[in-house]
Parts: sequence; C-alpha cells; structure tokens
Amino acid sequence: MNAFAPAPLAELPTPALLIDRDRLVRNIEEMSALAASAGVRLRPHFKASKCLDVARLQLDHGAIGFTCATAAEVTALLEAGIRDLVWAHQPVGPAKVDFAVRAGVPVAVDSVEVARPLAEAARAAGRRQPYLIEVDTGLGRAGVAPEDALALAAELAALPSLELRGVLTHEGHLMTYLGDRPGMDKAGTLVGEVLAGVAAELRAAGHPCEIVSVGSTPGATTAPFVPGVTEARAGTYVFYDSNQVALGTAGLSRTALTVLTRVVSTPRGGVAIVDAGLKAMSSDASVNGSGFGLVVDRPSLTFAKANEEHGYLTGEGVDALRVGDLLRILPNHGCGVVNMWSRAHVVEGDTAVARWPITGRH
Amino acid sequence: MNAFAPAPLAELPTPALLIDRDRLVRNIEEMSALAASAGVRLRPHFKASKCLDVARLQLDHGAIGFTCATAAEVTALLEAGIRDLVWAHQPVGPAKVDFAVRAGVPVAVDSVEVARPLAEAARAAGRRQPYLIEVDTGLGRAGVAPEDALALAAELAALPSLELRGVLTHEGHLMTYLGDRPGMDKAGTLVGEVLAGVAAELRAAGHPCEIVSVGSTPGATTAPFVPGVTEARAGTYVFYDSNQVALGTAGLSRTALTVLTRVVSTPRGGVAIVDAGLKAMSSDASVNGSGFGLVVDRPSLTFAKANEEHGYLTGEGVDALRVGDLLRILPNHGCGVVNMWSRAHVVEGDTAVARWPITGRH
Repeated sequence: MNAFAPAPLAELPTPALLIDRDRLVRNIEEMSALAASAGVRLRPHFKASKCLDVARLQLDHGAIGFTCATAAEVTALLEAGIRDLVWAHQPVGPAKVDFAVRAGVPVAVDSVEVARPLAEAARAAGRRQPYLIEVDTGLGRAGVAPEDALALAAELAALPSLELRGVLTHEGHLMTYLGDRPGMDKAGTLVGEVLAGVAAELRAAGHPCEIVSVGSTPGATTAPFVPGVTEARAGTYVFYDSNQVALGTAGLSRTALTVLTRVVSTPRGGVAIVDAGLKAMSSDASVNGSGFGLVVDRPSLTFAKANEEHGYLTGEGVDALRVGDLLRILPNHGCGVVNMWSRAHVVEGDTAVARWPITGRH
Repeated sequence: MNAFAPAPLAELPTPALLIDRDRLVRNIEEMSALAASAGVRLRPHFKASKCLDVARLQLDHGAIGFTCATAAEVTALLEAGIRDLVWAHQPVGPAKVDFAVRAGVPVAVDSVEVARPLAEAARAAGRRQPYLIEVDTGLGRAGVAPEDALALAAELAALPSLELRGVLTHEGHLMTYLGDRPGMDKAGTLVGEVLAGVAAELRAAGHPCEIVSVGSTPGATTAPFVPGVTEARAGTYVFYDSNQVALGTAGLSRTALTVLTRVVSTPRGGVAIVDAGLKAMSSDASVNGSGFGLVVDRPSLTFAKANEEHGYLTGEGVDALRVGDLLRILPNHGCGVVNMWSRAHVVEGDTAVARWPITGRH
C-alpha cells in the first residue's frame, strides 16, 4: 500500500531523507551473496534502517531475521510479524528484563550480574530465556574477555531458566583501521578466529553453542569466512555512508542514503546556508575528522559547520550557489541519520516514488 | 488526560528522557518575569522542547506564542490551536513556500531571492504573506547585514503581496563567549542596539516595523532590555543544559532535562558501559570540548565516549559502579537531546508522574 504520488525531487519539502532504491537493492543482493559465499546465515542489524520496508527486502533476499539494539526495534519487528530476532544488548533493570522474557527473544549476556535477574524473571514466568554470551574480540565495550567465556558459561549453566544459544561479538573496532585495509581485514579474520575458538571451547566443555555470530559491515568480507562462524550481523551495508567510503568498504556508487537540501541564504561571499542542519544530518562524526557530510557531485564544497536546522557550505565554487539550489548530502554515519527521521523518500533517479516510515526510534 | 500511572524511576525502561517538573516551571516563571521586566513580549522557540505540554505551560505563564524552525513544528502548534507563531526560517522551494502561504505564519526573509517566489505564491492565493527581515547581528549565518536592511526593505516593498511586520535576529554567536560573561553581555546589548537601530531606520523611511525580535537564552538578560526591542525568542531556558551551565547562563540547579540510564556492563577495570549512547544523548558537542554529558551527582565520572546505544563512563570511582546502577546524565545540548526522543517522562523527585509526547521531529 503506497498512497504516495510520485514526485520530482524538486517538489519535496526540504530537508528530506532519500533512499536510492536501485542502490539499496543492489547492496542487499550483494551482502546476501557474500553471506552465502561465506556459508553463514545473515541476520542484519535493524538499527541501520529502522525501516520495515527495507527489512522486508532483506528477508526477500535471504536474511533469516534481524539483530536489534533496543526494545523499540524488537517491538517494531515483532509487531510486523518478523520473529527471528536477536536483541544484541544486555537487558538490565526490571522493565527491560520483563520485556525480554515476554518477547522471548535471545539477548546478550556478559556477566552473572546481567544473567541472574533475567533467570529469575524467566523462572517466575515459567519460561527458559534464550541468550548468547557476548564476547569482546577487540572493541573494548561490553562483552566477556575470550579467555573468561568458558568460566562464565559454566556459572550461567547453573541457572536452569536460561538457555545458551551461542556466542556473539561486534567487531566495531574495525572502524579504526582508516587507511589500512590490510590491517582491517587481518583484524576481521582474527575476530572470527577468536570467536570460533571460544565456541569450540564451550562445546568441548559440553555447552550448547549453535550460533557463532559476528557483526559489522567492515568485517563482512573476513570474519564470516572463518570456519566455525555461523552468522553475520552487518547493518550499515544497506545504505553505506561517507565513513564506509573512507574506510574502503564501499565505493561512492554504493551509497544509497542522502539528505536533500536547498540553499536558503547566500548572505555574503564564501558561504552558502542550507536547510539541513544537525537535526537532519545528526552530529555523528566523520572518521576523517570534520564536517557533516559530503556534497554529492560537488567535491570542492565542504559541509563545514552546522546548527540545528542550518548547514554552512564553504569551499571552491560556493559563490556560484544560488538561493533555491537543490543539493544532496551524503551523511557521515547512515545509522545516525536514519535515526533523525520519521520517514524516508525512496527515489529512482530524480523522482521520489514512495515514502517509507522509519520506526523504533527512542 | 494522563493515562500514565506514577512510577519510581527504577521501574522505567532505560534509557529514558526525564523532565524535572519543578525546575521546568521555575525556569518558565523566571523567563516570563525577565521578559516582563524588559518590557518585551516572550515568544519562546518551540525547538527547545518540541512538547505541547511544555508549550501550554509557557502560554499559561505569559508567552504570546512561539517561534518555530521547521514546518513540522509550525504544524504541531497549529494543530494544537496555538496560532501566534513566527517561522524563523527562510521558506525556500515550492513545497515550503506553499506551506508558508497556507499557514499564513510570518516567515524570515533575508533576500529578494527568498521573497519573490513567496510573493508570487501569496499573490496567486489572493493573500498577503507576513514576513520579518532577518538581520545578521554577528552570528554570520543567514540574515541581511544591518547596513543593507533598508535597501532590502525598499526592494521588498515593491512586492505588494508581502507584508513587512518587523525585524528579527538570532544572536547565536553569544555561545562563543565561554568564560567571558562580561563580553557576552556586552555583545548581547550590542545585538539589541543594532537591531533597534535597523528598526528605527526602516520606520524613518516609512516601512512598518512593529516587531523587533531578538532571540537566545544567553542573550535574554541583555538584548531584550535595549529600548526599541519588542520581543524575545529564547528557547533553551526551559531545560538549560551543561553547555548553558558552562556559559554561566544558569546554575546546575536550574537544569531540568536528564537522560536516565543504567550500567549494563563493567567488563574490566576503569570503564563502565551504560545503555545511553548517541541515540539517547545526540552527538551534539560540549562547549567545553569533549564528552557526551555530565553524570549527575558524580562529578568525578566522565562520559568519555559513546556508540549508538552504549556510553562509556570513565574516571575516579567508576570501578565502584555495578551492573544495574541507575544514573542520570545532564546533556550537552538540550535541544539536540529532546529531538532524539518521542516522549519524555516528567519527574517529581524520584517518581515519574507523567509522560509527555515530543512532536514535530523530522
């Protein structure tokens, strides 16, 4: 059901979030093919699109289900009838523990402190709560150290209302290998090896470990290819972004998400003011260190500064811009930008052909 | 109508956006009193709360209406029956021009290029479109230079379907006077003097100039007190934030907006991971240069780093934190944080007493 009448981009109110349909579909096809060639199941992270229309395309192309970061994302997918989910987050506090047990979705556990209230709530509800042990393979965020995973599994096995499904890791530290693709790929392979090693150790000690799950777009070409890894959870690949381009995980021609904006003021030489600011672009940082996005097809321009609803463009050629000019901005961080919007316009060429809701925001 | 059952903070799912009701009301009362003592009308910026419940409190305390940044904010207020609005933004492009004319809300104009399509649309609709000339008094964003305002007014007067209501400026450059309150106050007074001077010049040339409108929280104690200024448009004051505290415009005891979060992992010494990340706090920068907010009542802790749904706390005392501990984070930039949320919980002490929707986001 699409009540949206196709319209030229010039007729859209600005700013507007745009999804290039052809590029999106191609990205989804390619990641599905990559996961298939690695022999792993693909469970994309929903946070990257927060869009059920995108999620359905991913399912159509072979994704087995989704990874979620928040209860709101889990809820959005469950309400859409999409039930094979992993909530890759420690549910802490009574409200989130209750939600996890009611939803029955596997969650991440990295400590006995996280596990105990969950086990108690599951026991009280007469259920077994599925979980995965989160392993820190280098990001330095949550997750048990690889060498401590077996001891944790042994402790958690004493809680009969919990049901171990496997292990997961998020290799977000690959984002730090800017300008070092060989280093990034080596680190990605190591992630897979470490996690598969933990899984083997757990199984050898008699623990079930069906799922061995890695997850990131920069690691998608390496970690899932390690023998023993069973699942990949990349997310950003649906749209990519300028940070992924800088990292070399995708070329500009793969980027599928832009913000449409207009020049609204050219108050003096050297600067043009556009109507896309922090609330359109997010303040999420560029891995290159500065700026709020790349001006599509205008590489000499710099999106140097932004206030809430204004952007400042500078650089060679800026004085040729006129009030009313339409520009498209490739964001630094697609996941952060999607989260600023309640809807996206789907474009084919210069025509908006559909409008898709964004859901599950805070 | 409030279907929300009061609950202790410990029962809320985290992260959660909290508004301290007593502080909010006090902030609103104080700003209303300040505007009254300056002899100006108060037209708060709606962007700072995007919350109709807050807006109604502001109206109850004497605000004459609201300032908006976006069509979505204008729409939210109009649909709530709040009609005395200024859209402090250049409406550029056919969709926004049409919206402005249909809404009949005064808009900002700083060039003939902005004015002409607006005049044409108003003429076609058989209406006169009200507008204010935006003057740049130092921010260096949009706005005509003060010395060029009269010439612009003369050009625009040739467009009979436009109706000049006055002049407005946003003295956002006051945010740069960190650690220099005397400099900030001097600059704020200068803003008022420059704008009142432009208004006098326009009137002397026969142009109507009923509204002379300044707008910012850091300038609220200075610019509106300049003779000739008629209106103040501060916004951030409803909640304040750590940036306003750093600037000295409010003490910590005035800050009314926090994010409730829980420790979800203490994977190793020296760091605690909480469930408030960039999508709870925004990435908006601290005027002090780093960090994602202040940990309330724990000044030795630093919110050093954040990913999308995770925050990293470091600093003295961090190793005493335990999984499940509840913390409140005072954001860098309240306006940016409100924009990350679809609802806020209103708290009295440690009890959530209401839940208010946030509206008009992109």
